[in-house]
Amino acid sequence: MDIKERIKKIKEKMKEKGISHYLVPTGDYHQSEYPGEYFKVRQWLSGFTGSNGDLLLSKEETALWTDGRYFIQAKKELSGNGISLYKMQMPGVPTLTQYLEDKAKKQGGILDLGFDGKVVSSHFVHHLADSFQKQGWKLNLHWKEDLSIGVWEDRPSLPKGHITVLPDSITGSSYKEKVQFVRDKMKEKGCNAHFLGKLDDIMWLLNIRGTDVDCNPVALSYIYLTMEECHLFLDKEKLTKEGEQYLEQEKIHCHSYEEIYSFSIGKKEDNKILYEEETTNYCIYQRLLEWGSLVKGENPTTRQKAIKNEVELENLRRIHILDGVAYTKFLYWLKGQSHIEKITEQSAAAYLEKQRKKMEGFMDLSFPTISAYGPHAALMHYSATQDQPTELKAEGLYLVDSGGQYMGGTTDITRTIVLGELTEEEKLHYTAVLKGMLRLSRAKFLQGCTGRNLDILARGPVWDLSIDYQCGTGHGIGYMLNVHEGPQGIRWKPLMDGKEAVIEPGMVTSNEPGVYVEGSHGIRIENELICKKGDENQYGQFLYFETLTMAPIDLKGIQIEQLEKEEIEQLNKYHEEVFEKLSPYLTKEEKDWLAMETKKISIMNT
Amino acid sequence: MDIKERIKKIKEKMKEKGISHYLVPTGDYHQSEYPGEYFKVRQWLSGFTGSNGDLLLSKEETALWTDGRYFIQAKKELSGNGISLYKMQMPGVPTLTQYLEDKAKKQGGILDLGFDGKVVSSHFVHHLADSFQKQGWKLNLHWKEDLSIGVWEDRPSLPKGHITVLPDSITGSSYKEKVQFVRDKMKEKGCNAHFLGKLDDIMWLLNIRGTDVDCNPVALSYIYLTMEECHLFLDKEKLTKEGEQYLEQEKIHCHSYEEIYSFSIGKKEDNKILYEEETTNYCIYQRLLEWGSLVKGENPTTRQKAIKNEVELENLRRIHILDGVAYTKFLYWLKGQSHIEKITEQSAAAYLEKQRKKMEGFMDLSFPTISAYGPHAALMHYSATQDQPTELKAEGLYLVDSGGQYMGGTTDITRTIVLGELTEEEKLHYTAVLKGMLRLSRAKFLQGCTGRNLDILARGPVWDLSIDYQCGTGHGIGYMLNVHEGPQGIRWKPLMDGKEAVIEPGMVTSNEPGVYVEGSHGIRIENELICKKGDENQYGQFLYFETLTMAPIDLKGIQIEQLEKEEIEQLNKYHEEVFEKLSPYLTKEEKDWLAMETKKISIMNT
Repeated sequence: MDIKERIKKIKEKMKEKGISHYLVPTGDYHQSEYPGEYFKVRQWLSGFTGSNGDLLLSKEETALWTDGRYFIQAKKELSGNGISLYKMQMPGVPTLTQYLEDKAKKQGGILDLGFDGKVVSSHFVHHLADSFQKQGWKLNLHWKEDLSIGVWEDRPSLPKGHITVLPDSITGSSYKEKVQFVRDKMKEKGCNAHFLGKLDDIMWLLNIRGTDVDCNPVALSYIYLTMEECHLFLDKEKLTKEGEQYLEQEKIHCHSYEEIYSFSIGKKEDNKILYEEETTNYCIYQRLLEWGSLVKGENPTTRQKAIKNEVELENLRRIHILDGVAYTKFLYWLKGQSHIEKITEQSAAAYLEKQRKKMEGFMDLSFPTISAYGPHAALMHYSATQDQPTELKAEGLYLVDSGGQYMGGTTDITRTIVLGELTEEEKLHYTAVLKGMLRLSRAKFLQGCTGRNLDILARGPVWDLSIDYQCGTGHGIGYMLNVHEGPQGIRWKPLMDGKEAVIEPGMVTSNEPGVYVEGSHGIRIENELICKKGDENQYGQFLYFETLTMAPIDLKGIQIEQLEKEEIEQLNKYHEEVFEKLSPYLTKEEKDWLAMETKKISIMNT
Repeated sequence: MDIKERIKKIKEKMKEKGISHYLVPTGDYHQSEYPGEYFKVRQWLSGFTGSNGDLLLSKEETALWTDGRYFIQAKKELSGNGISLYKMQMPGVPTLTQYLEDKAKKQGGILDLGFDGKVVSSHFVHHLADSFQKQGWKLNLHWKEDLSIGVWEDRPSLPKGHITVLPDSITGSSYKEKVQFVRDKMKEKGCNAHFLGKLDDIMWLLNIRGTDVDCNPVALSYIYLTMEECHLFLDKEKLTKEGEQYLEQEKIHCHSYEEIYSFSIGKKEDNKILYEEETTNYCIYQRLLEWGSLVKGENPTTRQKAIKNEVELENLRRIHILDGVAYTKFLYWLKGQSHIEKITEQSAAAYLEKQRKKMEGFMDLSFPTISAYGPHAALMHYSATQDQPTELKAEGLYLVDSGGQYMGGTTDITRTIVLGELTEEEKLHYTAVLKGMLRLSRAKFLQGCTGRNLDILARGPVWDLSIDYQCGTGHGIGYMLNVHEGPQGIRWKPLMDGKEAVIEPGMVTSNEPGVYVEGSHGIRIENELICKKGDENQYGQFLYFETLTMAPIDLKGIQIEQLEKEEIEQLNKYHEEVFEKLSPYLTKEEKDWLAMETKKISIMNT
């Protein structure tokens, strides 16, 4: 059944049920960023494979919203399927909500909206409902059914990945400590219960990791926490004996995953339940209403998880060296090829993965490697497997964005590699990206800053060329968890929900400005940064960044005369550290090569 | 009658009327930043002369709240009058609202609060009332009377300053165009009437200027605008014949200033009135309730007034050259003194004012000149007149922050002048401030940025030294209007109300980073910037700044080796422009001197 056929079938079901608009967002039952295969209804129905997109079906139109990372890719993947592309945050393009409001307006202030209530957040529904109420319009919700059931015939089943319990030497903080922290926060908010549906928060709280989603070490689960009890909803067959013993010992009551919808608790009137609107799906929200009175608020785990403790930071420093060694061995191999044409984007990515697998504690990639040569790199989240094998050539730029899950942390690194001759434009762009990356890395700022205060440091040199990279500059990174993690981020525009987290000591954030020229080239240089405490005085607590990522930055792309003195010094110092930390793990040949790649530059040697 | 006597009389009146708490804020009937003499009830009643303070009288206590700028001064001025000082934002000090809540709590959840409803914003009252309502407490408001009437015997009368009607060559946009714009905005918000109480907005809309408040060319007035009519409440004796004719010709109905409280309009049920809570006083708010249903929202004039049109910008460029000429003549004179010790902060400020007065179109200062030598400059809002005359010396730094009102615009400029030997620390600080000022001036950014995105460009070099200037980097500036004007600003923290305006083409904003070291020195370098359109492409509309302020920056404070190549080029280019634009207005001697002061610098000549 092709895409058009699938859309047709769903639209038929819509008509049957009197649903004029049906929304298929990207998401699992937990509002995860990377849903497992079972949850990829939007991809199945639209053909669009990007990681972010909302599909809306109506009689008049099939429409997809996605963000700047995917404009080019979406255009390509949607072509021929009769799906309109709505480019998020571009001038004149309505948001999904505005679109629905326009429709309601045209229909005399009434709209029927269907969706699977398990994959849509209660936040989205309430936000939309509020907006309709303000206008005095009527919104009829049909939230009880996933219309793809019965149409999507070869749908994958729910994952049954095994679970690992982490030792204290890895977590740096026990479940008892963490759960006490959460209960203290519940108390502060006047609550005696807490629903937690965010998968990485659950893993962090319980000090366990799962294997239900590729690259994201999580297990499908929910937690209902009271002041005395912890109810975990997770399929027991995922647990080893050790895992079962651990839960027992910690007095965590384990129920099946689906039981969240039938579980019943007593004394409703006494329950004051803290829940996070954004990560609680609408079906569960409806359950919670039956369980007690609700208090909206952030999951206390989210901020606490983002602030890495000293044990986590030490492990991160260690595994980042290993990851840098693997990356450097890959670079050495690549740069040493006499016939680079025999290498494809795929084979290069495979070689890199092989190097990572040799490293102690390596478990998995942290996301599918982006191995993108030439114009492919202009697609920010290009996936090499989706096309014909592309061979590298001894010219232009090659971008590799990749990372690993290690016992001891998660990595995310991008380098753009010079394979041969570059145009002056490519060099100009490469230099601007490097300048931005360096400038943000050396930022010093007062506690209280959010990413919005800092973004222009990285983006400024790119803006100076009248270019923008249409995405954030940086994201938080999990610890043996999701490669994208909140609450902090570095971006210049506020998010839709207006929430902005302060950057705090212990947080790990990526720094990845870029330039993407459609049809030509893409450049991104990405290091991870730890936020650390600097001076404290009458003005407050000053903060700065320590760079975690250790791998050479290709000097051949740089127009040295465009760099300021301070930037040259900073780059030289970084390269000195890279050599010092990585060289003990390299062969003589690799070491000699790395010494060359990290040699000091100066205005003189241009 | 001394202060104690005045307080006693007011408290007697409170007792008579059953008012347990009586509030006297700083403010006129329009919530202006600088109230005129008539409105200085708080000063009359407390003896405290600072520009910010709330006085609260009760049976138990007389209490004054003020901010950090005034702690020392307030302590001195309040001493002996039995008034307690509440230091705003100091740990453990309740806010006025918290104080009132504590009182209510102690009194069993009930409080009587009196104030002159004409000088308190409806926003403040609603905020307090909401907070009481949430606690289930009762707040009895007595807002109809100014208790100082009859007690303050020699109270100045309301100002009767004359009014000027501006020609199109100055305004660039007629009243008809402006009022059409406002009516369009009213319509967009579903309103058919608008109350406007903000004085500078009224002046802008009507293309008139007043002389009721020192340095702020406004006239006390209100506007009630409908789709067909414009009712102006302004004392007619302020108008010249020409002014009267102008109003007549524009069909503006002129009522007396006080008539706003007796004016009556028909058909209440049809009126939907747009009003701004923050700048509408509580008495008028009560009137508006009788006139129709109310819609809260920003005055449409505020943003539009901030976006200067081409005629205004051309006039601004012209008068900034004149202002720069005056400033340069002042600098030439100052630097040429063989016996600088004979000059005081006051006499220097007077000399500068004399130079400005010689310029064509000069009308008034735009604020009282800050002329601050050595440690005095560490007080951001130092006023030279409040102390003994301070003589300058041939050493250290001297800060002059000043500006003029011209027929054709308002200026605001700060230079920090090197009078002789500097310490290395002073030079380091001076260079950091200059770097920040230059960096922000050369920013290029996408439309959509607020001041929060840009602030770190100016503040970063100061933060790099673990120092902060504890105020914003920049404020909007009126056009022949208030030197502080919204809605935009450049600061790193969001304001209390969370409002943040996007920086738009045509807005004029100051750029004034600084370093303030208590007891030692203060440095601020301030240029005004016009936001302009740069490239427009697939990424959006790029913006950049044009510098309006034309005056040399003292090169003697700079550690050239701390400047980056780009900064040196930028400073040289700026100085070249300063010389080119100012020299035609200077004598031969002044010109030769300015050529030296604006000479090109390079790393080589350190």
